[in-house]
Amino acid sequence: MSQFCATMTSCECSRWPATLAAMTSSQGPSANSLRLDAEALNAFLDRAFPAAGTEQLPRVVDIAPGRVRMHAPTSDRSLRPGGVISGPTLMSLADSAAYALILGHIGEVAMAVTTSLNVHFLRPCRPGLLVAEGRLLRLGRRIATVDVLMWTEGPDRPAAQATVAYAIPESPGP
Amino acid sequence: MSQFCATMTSCECSRWPATLAAMTSSQGPSANSLRLDAEALNAFLDRAFPAAGTEQLPRVVDIAPGRVRMHAPTSDRSLRPGGVISGPTLMSLADSAAYALILGHIGEVAMAVTTSLNVHFLRPCRPGLLVAEGRLLRLGRRIATVDVLMWTEGPDRPAAQATVAYAIPESPGP
Amino acid sequence: MSQFCATMTSCECSRWPATLAAMTSSQGPSANSLRLDAEALNAFLDRAFPAAGTEQLPRVVDIAPGRVRMHAPTSDRSLRPGGVISGPTLMSLADSAAYALILGHIGEVAMAVTTSLNVHFLRPCRPGLLVAEGRLLRLGRRIATVDVLMWTEGPDRPAAQATVAYAIPESPGP
Amino acid sequence: MSQFCATMTSCECSRWPATLAAMTSSQGPSANSLRLDAEALNAFLDRAFPAAGTEQLPRVVDIAPGRVRMHAPTSDRSLRPGGVISGPTLMSLADSAAYALILGHIGEVAMAVTTSLNVHFLRPCRPGLLVAEGRLLRLGRRIATVDVLMWTEGPDRPAAQATVAYAIPESPGP
Repeated sequence: MSQFCATMTSCECSRWPATLAAMTSSQGPSANSLRLDAEALNAFLDRAFPAAGTEQLPRVVDIAPGRVRMHAPTSDRSLRPGGVISGPTLMSLADSAAYALILGHIGEVAMAVTTSLNVHFLRPCRPGLLVAEGRLLRLGRRIATVDVLMWTEGPDRPAAQATVAYAIPESPGP
Repeated sequence: MSQFCATMTSCECSRWPATLAAMTSSQGPSANSLRLDAEALNAFLDRAFPAAGTEQLPRVVDIAPGRVRMHAPTSDRSLRPGGVISGPTLMSLADSAAYALILGHIGEVAMAVTTSLNVHFLRPCRPGLLVAEGRLLRLGRRIATVDVLMWTEGPDRPAAQATVAYAIPESPGP
Repeated sequence: MSQFCATMTSCECSRWPATLAAMTSSQGPSANSLRLDAEALNAFLDRAFPAAGTEQLPRVVDIAPGRVRMHAPTSDRSLRPGGVISGPTLMSLADSAAYALILGHIGEVAMAVTTSLNVHFLRPCRPGLLVAEGRLLRLGRRIATVDVLMWTEGPDRPAAQATVAYAIPESPGP
Repeated sequence: MSQFCATMTSCECSRWPATLAAMTSSQGPSANSLRLDAEALNAFLDRAFPAAGTEQLPRVVDIAPGRVRMHAPTSDRSLRPGGVISGPTLMSLADSAAYALILGHIGEVAMAVTTSLNVHFLRPCRPGLLVAEGRLLRLGRRIATVDVLMWTEGPDRPAAQATVAYAIPESPGP
């Protein structure tokens, strides 16, 4: 299935029993199974970033093995001169999408930290529903790498693409 | 169609009359039409890089609007300690794939130059047929940005991912 | 002079008559002369980003041909779990430092936009006065590239390094 | 001392008893001491990359705690259309400089591998003595990050800047 399809019908949570898959896993983290579903991830993000205020955090709307989709609220604070969504808003979203996707696979006990982020701004990001789709390029034992595409006008007109690398602990627990 | 499918059956040259599309274009370069097909690109690369020797250049095996696939020969010179394909070999291929994809869309008259390249090495790249698949993230008037995935073990086990930005001339000709 | 010296005594505004240099320039933008000093840049940033609130914007504390230093306020909103300054805070600062440095050289009439940002997070960024030092790697006719180092513990213990590329208009400035 | 000064008089090997410093270290690897000097590094690179042929490898001409300088031979194979040194030549040199700098600090027993490389091409790289100066941004326990500047026309006219991240083994060194 395309990384960038507009509708992820094949990975609706009802069809991807991700939590079950994670529960039955007796192995270490895998790119093929989830340990947290969208609801659990959003609850974790709320607890982890209380200062931000619940209503301003991007939300996981879909997660499946290897990919995640998030929606981000934007406000006037997100706009830069010209009325487009600012670069820092997009960079922050890319980081959040990578974080959520990795935690979804390794579980919330792990203290993963961003080691690098590379973003290309492709076109002005017009106001609208801001969507990020993250795809796991590699879930290694120590480094996880995520590709993130972001848009408001549709996946065929991406506003930015980011590649994000996280360092993950040696022994993330089940 | 997936960016990373192993077989690009829907973009065989016989089915994508790219040259025709390019010929009928009276507009500037577009991400939706090609100006050079695989054969023309390979001929151009041979002329442009004579010092390399024809047999050592990566070859365009498929190109369609928005994406390209290349195969790269590897030799003992391409290996680093441990018997894996070296990072510079992959970086050079990523640059070539981006260059070929952009020229395919803007034509060979243009002097496009790489402005930045970001590569993540995802796993050891075992010897084998080295494949690169480039996808046009954005063909702007002045900057073109290309995402490249590279592998020998299959697209599900990518060895490296790169994002390459090229500066393109203001008025590339038809 | 070192890019990373803790004190930039040789580029105090009183000693670098930047505005004068800019005024006497009859040429295009140059990496060797400024068109805006720190005060003018801060005033411009205040006008350009009114939604942010003046007290929350990073401030230019020093600018000289080829480099800039900024101080960034941090608040509880800037902290992530563990009490360290968040990645997005650092990325936003890197972007601001590059923007201020480029505008300082080309003048505020130009509409420069970020095309790419690459950041490496080097160590946890402990709370404290957050400093960014930007250095102009290249002020081209169409692309400007800036290297930014950021720290709270001192330039010998940088928290992050970023490389930021901006697209600049063809005919900026008077 | 400036990262980019043209002459590294203060880090001549005769004045930086790097090997001694390394020998007296009873700790793990440190950014403040070396385990290999230039001669040992060049000998190691010759053994590690026999296929390349000794005469074509870049050479360490100076190394000191936290930084390295290399000279790279260039040939007709290094040139791209227009007679400038090719991007892949510069990327390969950046990777080598980072590798040499890290091995100089952690010793040759370690199997360090590149995880990411980000390069910005700043101006055409005219033929001439190709110089790379690497600076250690951070030598962490698991990740080392190196900034590399490259030029033929002098450090004030850099041809490219790269940031290179290496993964290093958990327990390197003797």
